[in-house]
Amino acid sequence: MTGSDTITIFKIGGNVVDNPSALDAFAKDFAGIEGKKILVHGGGKEATGLNERLGIKTVMIEGRRVTDRSTLDSVTMVYAGLINKRIVTLLQAEGVDALGLTGADADVIRAARRSPYPIDYGFVGDIAPEGVNVEFINFLLTHDIVPVFCAIMHNGEGQLLNCNADGVASAVAIALAKSGIPTELIYCFEKDGVLRDIDDASSLIASINASEYAALKEQGIINKGMIPKIDTAFKAIAQGVEAVTIKNSANITNSKGTRLSPI
Amino acid sequence: MTGSDTITIFKIGGNVVDNPSALDAFAKDFAGIEGKKILVHGGGKEATGLNERLGIKTVMIEGRRVTDRSTLDSVTMVYAGLINKRIVTLLQAEGVDALGLTGADADVIRAARRSPYPIDYGFVGDIAPEGVNVEFINFLLTHDIVPVFCAIMHNGEGQLLNCNADGVASAVAIALAKSGIPTELIYCFEKDGVLRDIDDASSLIASINASEYAALKEQGIINKGMIPKIDTAFKAIAQGVEAVTIKNSANITNSKGTRLSPI
Repeated sequence: MTGSDTITIFKIGGNVVDNPSALDAFAKDFAGIEGKKILVHGGGKEATGLNERLGIKTVMIEGRRVTDRSTLDSVTMVYAGLINKRIVTLLQAEGVDALGLTGADADVIRAARRSPYPIDYGFVGDIAPEGVNVEFINFLLTHDIVPVFCAIMHNGEGQLLNCNADGVASAVAIALAKSGIPTELIYCFEKDGVLRDIDDASSLIASINASEYAALKEQGIINKGMIPKIDTAFKAIAQGVEAVTIKNSANITNSKGTRLSPI
Repeated sequence: MTGSDTITIFKIGGNVVDNPSALDAFAKDFAGIEGKKILVHGGGKEATGLNERLGIKTVMIEGRRVTDRSTLDSVTMVYAGLINKRIVTLLQAEGVDALGLTGADADVIRAARRSPYPIDYGFVGDIAPEGVNVEFINFLLTHDIVPVFCAIMHNGEGQLLNCNADGVASAVAIALAKSGIPTELIYCFEKDGVLRDIDDASSLIASINASEYAALKEQGIINKGMIPKIDTAFKAIAQGVEAVTIKNSANITNSKGTRLSPI
């Protein structure tokens, strides 16, 4: 169990933000979570949909969107505008004093543009925990304001950068942990957690430690799509985050999910 | 002269936000303004441009955009996403600790949906000074954070609403004034102020009081486009705002503009 002073960082993705009724339900559940909390949301199909309608070609390399200038404008509109404000207004209606943020707002998270070698992802950034303005996040939480981050960050020199939402959640959790505040990270997605058999919801693995993870990967039980998420999770644990849980976004209050632990 | 504890609320519109070099120059000038300050920005051509590219018909009645659901999504993307974050990241690069806000963020400004009679503007809202969360704005200003508002507000019940940026600036100035904080409002636009002869920059009227305003309207010197802005300005003065100045966005630090005064 985590203490009452633990800050819980939730990350939601496309399965929630693309689906109005799922988002409504999540907002209600999230409102019921006690203690200090932070929400990070990913994109979803709307950015790709907007690009298609605008005739901007969506190019993905290894699951990461290549972000040219038009795409950066488009994801800024969808993530920082449409989705972020939709979530904030829904949460406000549920009594959560949500505040939507990009990394540029109050300079809360700086990212560095990723090196164009070997692959040029364009205006894509990576975040180090040192880029997180822990003081400002604490200032909000202390005043019962719930930060709601999209994954658009900036470099501090006037350039917005498209980042990975799992990475934002992890960087925030690590940065707070390093400053001495206990944090817990919850990655929400469309399944109950890590399943031994992807077609059998009852095959949920309750917990995975680092050596079990290596074995599950070797056996092919943990597949491609999950590997970056779980890698990010173990890195967060190694840097001081108390616990990382992967669970169903449709049931964040009651489901246990899969808890990742160092040993 | 206003005292050093006066909060200055600047409003910029399309002529700045549509033009990258004008926006860069404004950001630099705004960074040089001393004292507590707030920025409110309007839209511009980009929302109309996006609508056109998306096949959404732009309908304007009396200069106000009719906002159906698709248009609301589109203006939320452009105003709250693209333009707001572009301004925030530019200001951050100039050393201004800017924080972008819609009314939904931290429930900072609530609007009421305008009555659909006699004209149904759709998801358009109006703001009363009572809808302004003065405490939160003060909380930011006290910590040297500069709020940057777009004109997307919410009703507190999960609905975003498209509002008028001049009205947002005025409501914020009035609400702060009513709480005992001196405020000054500066409407920035593409001219040096109110001109006696629209083609002669040297015909600037340095100040206008309420009775002079009535005469200038009667003489046709103040034309249609300016009347709602100046009406809003005089209402703000009547409700406690110390001064309202209309000046050129290209020269906010040195130009005097036209100062509106009650008597």
